[in-house]
Amino acid sequence: MQPDIKLAATLFDSLDRATRQGRGIVRDSFGDGEQAAHDILRSAAQALGLEISVDAIGNLMMTLPGRDRQLPRIIIGSHLDSSPQSGNYDGAAGVVAGICVVAALRSAGRQPDCDITVMGIRAEESSWFNISYLGSGGAFGLLDPACLAVTRSDNGRSLEATLLERGFDPGPIRERRALLEPARIRAYLELHIEQGPTLVAERLPAAVVTGIRGCKRFRNARCIGQYAHSGAVNRSSRHDAVAATVALLHHLEALWLQYEQRGADLTITCGELYTDSAYHAPSKIAGDTHFVIDIRSASQGVMDEVADEARRAAARCADAYRVEFDLGVCSDSPPAVMDARLRAGLRAQLQQPYEMASGAGHDAAVFAKVGVPTGMIFVRNENGSHNPDEAMTLEDFDIGARALLGLLMNFPL
Amino acid sequence: MQPDIKLAATLFDSLDRATRQGRGIVRDSFGDGEQAAHDILRSAAQALGLEISVDAIGNLMMTLPGRDRQLPRIIIGSHLDSSPQSGNYDGAAGVVAGICVVAALRSAGRQPDCDITVMGIRAEESSWFNISYLGSGGAFGLLDPACLAVTRSDNGRSLEATLLERGFDPGPIRERRALLEPARIRAYLELHIEQGPTLVAERLPAAVVTGIRGCKRFRNARCIGQYAHSGAVNRSSRHDAVAATVALLHHLEALWLQYEQRGADLTITCGELYTDSAYHAPSKIAGDTHFVIDIRSASQGVMDEVADEARRAAARCADAYRVEFDLGVCSDSPPAVMDARLRAGLRAQLQQPYEMASGAGHDAAVFAKVGVPTGMIFVRNENGSHNPDEAMTLEDFDIGARALLGLLMNFPL
Repeated sequence: MQPDIKLAATLFDSLDRATRQGRGIVRDSFGDGEQAAHDILRSAAQALGLEISVDAIGNLMMTLPGRDRQLPRIIIGSHLDSSPQSGNYDGAAGVVAGICVVAALRSAGRQPDCDITVMGIRAEESSWFNISYLGSGGAFGLLDPACLAVTRSDNGRSLEATLLERGFDPGPIRERRALLEPARIRAYLELHIEQGPTLVAERLPAAVVTGIRGCKRFRNARCIGQYAHSGAVNRSSRHDAVAATVALLHHLEALWLQYEQRGADLTITCGELYTDSAYHAPSKIAGDTHFVIDIRSASQGVMDEVADEARRAAARCADAYRVEFDLGVCSDSPPAVMDARLRAGLRAQLQQPYEMASGAGHDAAVFAKVGVPTGMIFVRNENGSHNPDEAMTLEDFDIGARALLGLLMNFPL
Repeated sequence: MQPDIKLAATLFDSLDRATRQGRGIVRDSFGDGEQAAHDILRSAAQALGLEISVDAIGNLMMTLPGRDRQLPRIIIGSHLDSSPQSGNYDGAAGVVAGICVVAALRSAGRQPDCDITVMGIRAEESSWFNISYLGSGGAFGLLDPACLAVTRSDNGRSLEATLLERGFDPGPIRERRALLEPARIRAYLELHIEQGPTLVAERLPAAVVTGIRGCKRFRNARCIGQYAHSGAVNRSSRHDAVAATVALLHHLEALWLQYEQRGADLTITCGELYTDSAYHAPSKIAGDTHFVIDIRSASQGVMDEVADEARRAAARCADAYRVEFDLGVCSDSPPAVMDARLRAGLRAQLQQPYEMASGAGHDAAVFAKVGVPTGMIFVRNENGSHNPDEAMTLEDFDIGARALLGLLMNFPL
């Protein structure tokens, strides 16, 4: 018995054709791109005769019934949205893997003891609504209802309006009402491409995930200085927003080096930084910057320390450069630990058992947070993710999907 | 006899009403905003009975005839364009001053010995076509004909197409043909707001300009890294365009400090800096930055040294951060020195004679470059220039215009 890799190839092709815009993939959260991916997976599930339902906020549940439908079910899932100009695999690979594994059980005529649900999760990426895990967090009633007012970064429409436009119901989010009950889930399993270069460097096709780094993020940081002529104002009279922002970011890099030297787990990233195109000019000192500070660690303590130091450093740079910093709200996704028995079970399925932490966040972190035993497998991927050059081979995907299938056949829980 | 300050107030009001868009002034080079300013000044000159002509590339010449029309003329001028979202005075004040001074001569019935031409110069600001001094440089046949292919930063239309749309003739630029003969110009005089905070700090209404800083500028610098997931890639595996750009800009600030400590005249500014909004995201390492490095000094040697060191530092940062830098073309406007007799003549007109260098470039630099004796007067202005908050009082403007008028009455050349 083996995962249906031909089906996987067909699904990846369909997803690519339906959601590529220019060089990259665009599956906008609760938008047309994400919906196209849901439609493709739903058709595949229908063809396999799975039970299909969509929950109030749009998560797609595709279920192979077990012998005892009263038993807690196993969910195999991932998200079907992408960040803008992304690749074809970040998220979708996990849902396609679930479908391939279930297809294998189906065609072998194997009915599992409990239900196995492949879950196409909504809106995991924070690029669109500035909030991660809208689909899985919403399914467990974990979202702050205030998020309904958050607007999408590209079209400015609120999450509430966007949900209603798609025919979904913001009610459960508004009432913090859970759509899934953790006690009714035996385990959550997620296959995902590795988003860093580790497996490529290690020449390994797949790895078992030990845990997921948390993330603290200043999404809407700003520096406010004063526009002035670039040639006519001495250094000591400037209110230079770029110079102040450069000083702050330079300090954070030095801080990262210190943590690195003492072996602490940490990344600090500024991936968006811009002066205001309506006001900036080559002959002006910049009066304004917008930027992001993204802090990740397997240790909540390290993240908290770095976020605090970022605030203190911003205050010092504001004084030194005669500007103001407004770092804005700092979001906080705590680190998550994977279930030890599922880790062992997955390791046993790999010819070269290898474990690593996940630097990126995943829906698996939400399931782990509410107490669902959670396991993850990474598949090798070249060129990182969140860019058009993601490259996973079907061979590596097959090894990951086989590990999932093998785990189901020898389930440790 | 005194400058017609009521007329100045009316002209500034008309310019403001015709060219304010939102918070700031927009007099786009060879665009509708600049043309509106030309129309207003032309009407005022007509009302004063001046001789009016427009040269092939759109410079507006408004002439009070002298007793001997064969004598070389005096030009009082400045530019009528502005950078985007600028204030009402950068440029326009010099043309308005010329009109007010000529109006005073007119109403006193004083005919000068030579022609006095008030010149409304086109396209001094580099924000639109990435080239400074198109109007004055073009008038002296100094432009590289290749500039005709340069496109306007906002609408992408070439300079050639833009000139033709306005009914002007790109021919003289293509043929490097001069429209003005330096030997036929007795002197060029320009009143301009100070664009830095010096006169405000010194509590002085006006200053005589000693010289104009040159400018070397990397207008289209880029850093090319690789997009990747912010949480999943360690520091040593990144190709982080923002981190590399921050390191380069931080180095240039340290370099500026060194020059400052040894008393060298210098500014280094990055006023535009942005990641690519089509690809960047809060959860990505940035694969791309665009930025400007603007280097100004009264010393060509200092500018050359800093530009060379910027190139070397970019190469070092490229190695250290595993990215590429492409600093692009470096434009070069040399420093200019003002005529000593005109400086002395202007000083003699000020109650508190004060001299200073100009950090910003001016059309006066072009006239000086071709050998025309050139003098400049700065008028106090709050909040710098190239921003909507420029603030010059009519009282200070009056002091500057009186100095010009007094100089004409006691002309030293």
